[in-house]
Amino acid sequence: MPDQPRVEFRTGPEHYRHWRLGIEGPVATLTMDVDEQGGIVSGYDLKLNSYDLGVDIELYDAVQRLRFEHPEVRTVVITSGKPKIFCAGANIRMLAASPHGWKVNFCKFTNETRNGIEDATAHSGQTYLAAVNGTASGGGYELALACEHIMLIDDRSSAVSLPELPLLGVLPGTGGLTRVSDKRHVRRDLADYFSTKAEGIGGKKAVQWRLVDEAVPRPRWDETVAERAAELAARSGRPHDAEGVALTPLNKTRDDDTITYDHVEARLDRDTGKVDISVKGPQIDPPASIAEARSADFWPLAVARELDDLILDLRTNETELGTWVFRTEGDPTKVLAHDELLLNSKDDWLANEILHYLKRTLRRLDVTSRSLIAVIEPGSCFAGSLLELALAADRSFQLAGVFEDSDAEPATITLGEANLGPLTMSNGLTRLQTRFWGDEPGYEAAAKRKNEALAAEDAADLGLITFAPDDIDWDEEIRIATEERASFSPDALTGLEANYRFAGPETMETKIFGRLSAWQNWIFNRPNAAGPDGALRRFGTGQRAVFDRKRV
Amino acid sequence: MPDQPRVEFRTGPEHYRHWRLGIEGPVATLTMDVDEQGGIVSGYDLKLNSYDLGVDIELYDAVQRLRFEHPEVRTVVITSGKPKIFCAGANIRMLAASPHGWKVNFCKFTNETRNGIEDATAHSGQTYLAAVNGTASGGGYELALACEHIMLIDDRSSAVSLPELPLLGVLPGTGGLTRVSDKRHVRRDLADYFSTKAEGIGGKKAVQWRLVDEAVPRPRWDETVAERAAELAARSGRPHDAEGVALTPLNKTRDDDTITYDHVEARLDRDTGKVDISVKGPQIDPPASIAEARSADFWPLAVARELDDLILDLRTNETELGTWVFRTEGDPTKVLAHDELLLNSKDDWLANEILHYLKRTLRRLDVTSRSLIAVIEPGSCFAGSLLELALAADRSFQLAGVFEDSDAEPATITLGEANLGPLTMSNGLTRLQTRFWGDEPGYEAAAKRKNEALAAEDAADLGLITFAPDDIDWDEEIRIATEERASFSPDALTGLEANYRFAGPETMETKIFGRLSAWQNWIFNRPNAAGPDGALRRFGTGQRAVFDRKRV
Repeated sequence: MPDQPRVEFRTGPEHYRHWRLGIEGPVATLTMDVDEQGGIVSGYDLKLNSYDLGVDIELYDAVQRLRFEHPEVRTVVITSGKPKIFCAGANIRMLAASPHGWKVNFCKFTNETRNGIEDATAHSGQTYLAAVNGTASGGGYELALACEHIMLIDDRSSAVSLPELPLLGVLPGTGGLTRVSDKRHVRRDLADYFSTKAEGIGGKKAVQWRLVDEAVPRPRWDETVAERAAELAARSGRPHDAEGVALTPLNKTRDDDTITYDHVEARLDRDTGKVDISVKGPQIDPPASIAEARSADFWPLAVARELDDLILDLRTNETELGTWVFRTEGDPTKVLAHDELLLNSKDDWLANEILHYLKRTLRRLDVTSRSLIAVIEPGSCFAGSLLELALAADRSFQLAGVFEDSDAEPATITLGEANLGPLTMSNGLTRLQTRFWGDEPGYEAAAKRKNEALAAEDAADLGLITFAPDDIDWDEEIRIATEERASFSPDALTGLEANYRFAGPETMETKIFGRLSAWQNWIFNRPNAAGPDGALRRFGTGQRAVFDRKRV
Repeated sequence: MPDQPRVEFRTGPEHYRHWRLGIEGPVATLTMDVDEQGGIVSGYDLKLNSYDLGVDIELYDAVQRLRFEHPEVRTVVITSGKPKIFCAGANIRMLAASPHGWKVNFCKFTNETRNGIEDATAHSGQTYLAAVNGTASGGGYELALACEHIMLIDDRSSAVSLPELPLLGVLPGTGGLTRVSDKRHVRRDLADYFSTKAEGIGGKKAVQWRLVDEAVPRPRWDETVAERAAELAARSGRPHDAEGVALTPLNKTRDDDTITYDHVEARLDRDTGKVDISVKGPQIDPPASIAEARSADFWPLAVARELDDLILDLRTNETELGTWVFRTEGDPTKVLAHDELLLNSKDDWLANEILHYLKRTLRRLDVTSRSLIAVIEPGSCFAGSLLELALAADRSFQLAGVFEDSDAEPATITLGEANLGPLTMSNGLTRLQTRFWGDEPGYEAAAKRKNEALAAEDAADLGLITFAPDDIDWDEEIRIATEERASFSPDALTGLEANYRFAGPETMETKIFGRLSAWQNWIFNRPNAAGPDGALRRFGTGQRAVFDRKRV
């Protein structure tokens, strides 16, 4: 695969090449109809509704817009626009030709999109229904697995399958194994058999084995899909008469050295391998009620969108910038006031959407393979929702006192209600709970100081920051921390961070990003898959893969 | 590293080269004093109390013998016989020179041994105390982390450290990260800092950060260690007047094609890449009471020891035999009777030890990177504890009816009390619970049939076996299953099995074998660690590692 052009995640329905979005009352239908010639990079055709990153970027955009722009939509039907085939999964030629990092990043993003589908179903009253109207293989079945209800057309040829192991020598990379066992509760021996049977399983047996929820004969297909969609819609608590918020284009400027938005700015430092990211707090007080905040310019929504885009941009396009340094700038009380408006309006569909979007965006940070450092200086606003950036960081530094000759107030951090519940990590805990996992008294001591502006000494004593150097040591300590980070093995850092960021319980989501992805990454690196004679490279060549038979 | 000679796991204190075992009343002391010239393969010196597989085989043996041969021991002190150094961890030259599979296997075994130390502390009343009388680096600190209480000598030079990331570009491979975060509850940012600081942390700060439990000045060292050991011993419920059971040498015969013990036999088929393992049930009824069973010949203990040794032997020495096929032979009622004696004597220290040993041995199977198939034929005794072999398998086949012209009774399986509680997997659930994870009614329906001999049709209906072919299809189905398995990518199978075998909740143990080990295996495979310019290979050469700086 040649050097990829810079990947851009911003799109909109008017630009989709691979999906059609249709809305009829409370039911939206997302029809996958992949343009074979529309690969995001050259070198492969997207046959049989197979997908690449570009196809998934459109899906992600659609899932987001449905939540914000379409409060009236209560069921989302995912189906195929091609005859006999629902989706063949990730394009194999694309995978075979991609460098390791591209594969891993691609899987991470598709995982996040599928988690987002489940998040919409669980928290947004938008239930996803997979109308599998043809064969769903690999990533195609994994897309269906992310939906709440899976209908398979019963026509003696359509089946669901996970052929990755028998055909390609890799694992289903987008949560397939975890969802088969932990969500669908397919018995482990049946799951094992299913995952080795390239042609898959259809009809009644697929239902019996819990691989799908129902198998419907073609003559009753359209009618039954409509029936199920209506049933699921009837369960939703979304409002009947609300107006959506248009996700207007981001005001983004991007060159080789800087990425700027209205509230977020990133300076890319290629010499030291780091990115300095600055997030501005709101300039104004929040409106009196959420009703007056229905716009993409509302600060919490705007900042979540900008951070989301920045994370995806840096992650995909700037893989050699291994450390992200977060700063904030603004008035902490205004951040807390915006949080408060959202938290007091949780019954409002839009407030709910914004909180969950912020949650998902912060979760992207947690699974990002970059070292995260928070730098807390005078003039910053690490409070409430923005304090999550510091809590997500691998380390944080807060200046004790002020810089020499400065008349600024000392830097503070402030815990708010936003840190105590809504913004959970993938492990189901808040970042504060994870930080104090196994240390109840530590957690209680910190939580008690809610809404109090904490100077560096207090914050350090409470365990809310890592280090509190004074102005004499400040520059040196931060320089050493970032330079040292840049000197370590990038792979070892990725493994270290992936372990330490997730203390405590595991969920399906952490299992997907931890256990499953780590094994998949290992396999992607093995000659048996990715070597010149490996299964992934030899697929479709007519030549059998040659395996080193040693079990590891 | 040249071809390894066949590794043998059988040893005994009289053969130890690296450890001294001393016992004074209720306190045993295991002193690590590694023989530099005693590497299990040639090519490296075991300097600074660093270890290789051979050192760990002795440790495993000692941990086992303490449980069975020394009911009087209530505290086990692990300390070093070398001045100023507790243990430098796994030998780096050994790691650098080892092929990937050897490293992975070595880490797995050391992980199991450390889990066994925790198991003894939790279930056996033998509490491990780490008396860290010098610097403990990497695997040395990980050994201490497996102990219940960590004492560090406070002499301004001794420290604990995890220098793997900064020095070698890999992770602490033996549970270090997981135990730091999930057992010791070290805060994640402090843990991050600690794991990048090669020289480690000692003294009061090590206590403050929870890395150790106490730092004790040299003048009070011996006295304080003795004091703590006595305190821990006082908490134990082990008997005061019991006599141990000598773990007499196994009656093992081993050549290139067969491995035989008294109750277990393995036939190695190199052409098809499989091992046929047969386990014999007890020939005789159990004694009337556990008091009469105090001998290494008691069937449940004997069979656990033989299986344990076989698993370790095959795993380490026969990596190209990718499928293990389990059969049993004997009278199911005699198996159940032996189980019953153990379960009714759970308050007896020996019965308790045997049950936990069987549990640990079966857990070894769960984390073994081999496909496991159970074949249930007439004359077999898959009942109770031996049924766990079938429940541990990735697939099972039970003959429906009998073979033509046979006058045998049809094969049955029998659930017993042993399947309903004591023999938990690493995830904290029984294999039956894991099998029916998310399917309460399925679990209840099966559990209700306890002590009933179930023919193939019933067993299949209840979901206790995978397939129930009749005699016409039998040979063909089993042949296809094993041949097909041999045709798949060994790496992909390892990943698939590691995911499907552990549905449901995660524990520290599953996190170590899943999340942590999978990341470590990935890193071990990356040029940044294992390539010619990687950190692991360049360590000690005076040359800095060269890293591909792309974050993946």
